[in-house]
Amino acid sequence: MFEATFNQASILKQVLEATKDLVNDANWDCSAEGIALQAMDSSHVSLVSLSLRGDELASYRCENQISLGINMNTMTKILKCAENNDRTIIRADDDADVMVFVFESEGRDKTSKYEMKLMDIDSEHLGIPEQEYSATVQMSSKEFSRIVRDLSTIGENVEITVDKEGITFGAKGESGSGTVSLKSNPSVDEGSSNITIDLTDSVKLNFALRYLTFFTKAAPLSDNVSLSLSADVPLMVEYAIGDVGFIRYYLAPKIDDDEDTEE
Amino acid sequence: MFEATFNQASILKQVLEATKDLVNDANWDCSAEGIALQAMDSSHVSLVSLSLRGDELASYRCENQISLGINMNTMTKILKCAENNDRTIIRADDDADVMVFVFESEGRDKTSKYEMKLMDIDSEHLGIPEQEYSATVQMSSKEFSRIVRDLSTIGENVEITVDKEGITFGAKGESGSGTVSLKSNPSVDEGSSNITIDLTDSVKLNFALRYLTFFTKAAPLSDNVSLSLSADVPLMVEYAIGDVGFIRYYLAPKIDDDEDTEE
Amino acid sequence: MFEATFNQASILKQVLEATKDLVNDANWDCSAEGIALQAMDSSHVSLVSLSLRGDELASYRCENQISLGINMNTMTKILKCAENNDRTIIRADDDADVMVFVFESEGRDKTSKYEMKLMDIDSEHLGIPEQEYSATVQMSSKEFSRIVRDLSTIGENVEITVDKEGITFGAKGESGSGTVSLKSNPSVDEGSSNITIDLTDSVKLNFALRYLTFFTKAAPLSDNVSLSLSADVPLMVEYAIGDVGFIRYYLAPKIDDDEDTEE
Repeated sequence: MFEATFNQASILKQVLEATKDLVNDANWDCSAEGIALQAMDSSHVSLVSLSLRGDELASYRCENQISLGINMNTMTKILKCAENNDRTIIRADDDADVMVFVFESEGRDKTSKYEMKLMDIDSEHLGIPEQEYSATVQMSSKEFSRIVRDLSTIGENVEITVDKEGITFGAKGESGSGTVSLKSNPSVDEGSSNITIDLTDSVKLNFALRYLTFFTKAAPLSDNVSLSLSADVPLMVEYAIGDVGFIRYYLAPKIDDDEDTEE
Repeated sequence: MFEATFNQASILKQVLEATKDLVNDANWDCSAEGIALQAMDSSHVSLVSLSLRGDELASYRCENQISLGINMNTMTKILKCAENNDRTIIRADDDADVMVFVFESEGRDKTSKYEMKLMDIDSEHLGIPEQEYSATVQMSSKEFSRIVRDLSTIGENVEITVDKEGITFGAKGESGSGTVSLKSNPSVDEGSSNITIDLTDSVKLNFALRYLTFFTKAAPLSDNVSLSLSADVPLMVEYAIGDVGFIRYYLAPKIDDDEDTEE
Repeated sequence: MFEATFNQASILKQVLEATKDLVNDANWDCSAEGIALQAMDSSHVSLVSLSLRGDELASYRCENQISLGINMNTMTKILKCAENNDRTIIRADDDADVMVFVFESEGRDKTSKYEMKLMDIDSEHLGIPEQEYSATVQMSSKEFSRIVRDLSTIGENVEITVDKEGITFGAKGESGSGTVSLKSNPSVDEGSSNITIDLTDSVKLNFALRYLTFFTKAAPLSDNVSLSLSADVPLMVEYAIGDVGFIRYYLAPKIDDDEDTEE
């Protein structure tokens, strides 16, 4: 039997908001350690990896490893029936064809129980190799969302450049072009972006803004986002989920003629 | 001549919001006692009954009984031209083909006057028999709206069960099922639902969520809603309008195969 | 070279919001004195005139007169990439085919630079004769927006009457009619409209609400709006832009049979 308790429904709600537009159906792999989900988006371009550690949840048990096939939109719909502060239990028997959701209101005089049908989903577990990155940038998740949104109005792709100076995002389109630059080690004033950069080699890589836009749906989970880049390997965009786990997105760089003129 | 003055436009605005989606055209029956409206929805499934007592209004006069045929959407449109706090007068001469609206702003330096054409509407006054109910539940109108909204995402019908323990709402659909339970006599903590139940017999009845959704449009009128149920008679959903009156909705239960398996 | 610096992006954003729905493409005429824009709406019914004085900006230089052909929607899109408080520089070289936008965040650790392609636009500079008006009304810009919005739900045209008593707006439509009256010299209570009227002759004129609706998009620029009217000449609707300049709209009155029955 699998059972996990969250002190608040909001974490699960935010996790679903961060994944449902990218992935329609996915297996939630539950083991003694916790919950893991790994899936490619429907166009097989980007990859999302979610990890929630059982011992950091309000309570957790999972005797036998179990893979729960879930339609992400249905789960989103059911989680919308919970108030953000509701204590939330998700549960499935070992041979279950349903997942059970229990939402308890703070005063405990309201209890909601939902059952969601499970699905059989072909599981294609992808090994994600541990990777050393040339550059890792920590920045405000809101700022990252804002930049992705702004440059999406200019063009389809963004060129991300990281060097000692900072990080620069650039886009080009029919009506013009735009670049947004954030300096590293900024003064820690209130208005500052507070970015930190861990750099071994400068990088300049191109990515499709369409997928970065999907990734920024995770911004409510964390004040910060980390971007890890190396030439010729997928960008990793990571949002921590408190102390409980993380959600990571991977996106391969675009091979672009402009790359030949790399500085 | 008929003339009624409301200290605030907001009551009339809320009354229209609570009825306009259910009823397109309706007669407002004005008499010395006050204003009454009774109408079936356009699919003739549910019934709405509005009552506003003249002596509880800021001022009221109606020498001769008069029936004013009103297009509810037009009246909604005109009321949107009033600020919530505007002193509001509605008026019609005995042989009038228009209703007059006067909105006076708080400072009185702005006055708006609208005339709305009246219609001839076939009047089908339905006697609503006084009814003893097996169960009457008082609960938060916001909570009721929330439950109706949540279960509407799960299925088309809701099974309402009232017994000594409390009230339970249940729905089933293609992707799963849900039940929401509220305990009676809860601790009067802040987070509590504060429901009270007046019970002679337990009831378990099925209703179309589509119509309950229409009824919940009245929630801004009152913090509380009262649900009155008996086997085989229509559910009555009542929202008080301050001390001025009430709006009541009636909906017959659905005859459902599940009822055979009643506990 | 032309370069203008605004302490905040919000003024330019609001100027664009106030013009882009009326005018698709327009020449921004930059001279030593400042920036001017004059254009008819696409249906050639109304005229908008914008003026920003260089010496009231954070900094300004323009050695040679230059006319910058701008697609207003593209410029709106680029300005949306600025935070309201961003220090904003717009710049163009004398023979430029692009306009450059630089947005600096308050902490200065974020800098965005956008380039927008310029267009060749046939310039049709219209002399707007200085005009004495029979009536000039100063009123709350929010109140004016509200009245235009309300009466637009009633009819297509508004009859504006100004006399010693105050200003009255009236509209008629299929479902009824409405008039909104504001008294002049009101008590200066909080709820008052604070209108002031400068009157030599009473006026009663008809205008298409569709265009007034466009004009009210400028309301965020100023708490007050001024309406200047005379028989047979276009209405002028003016919003001040702080001490920096103004935006003025002109709209010819409609010739209407009702005018024969003028009081």
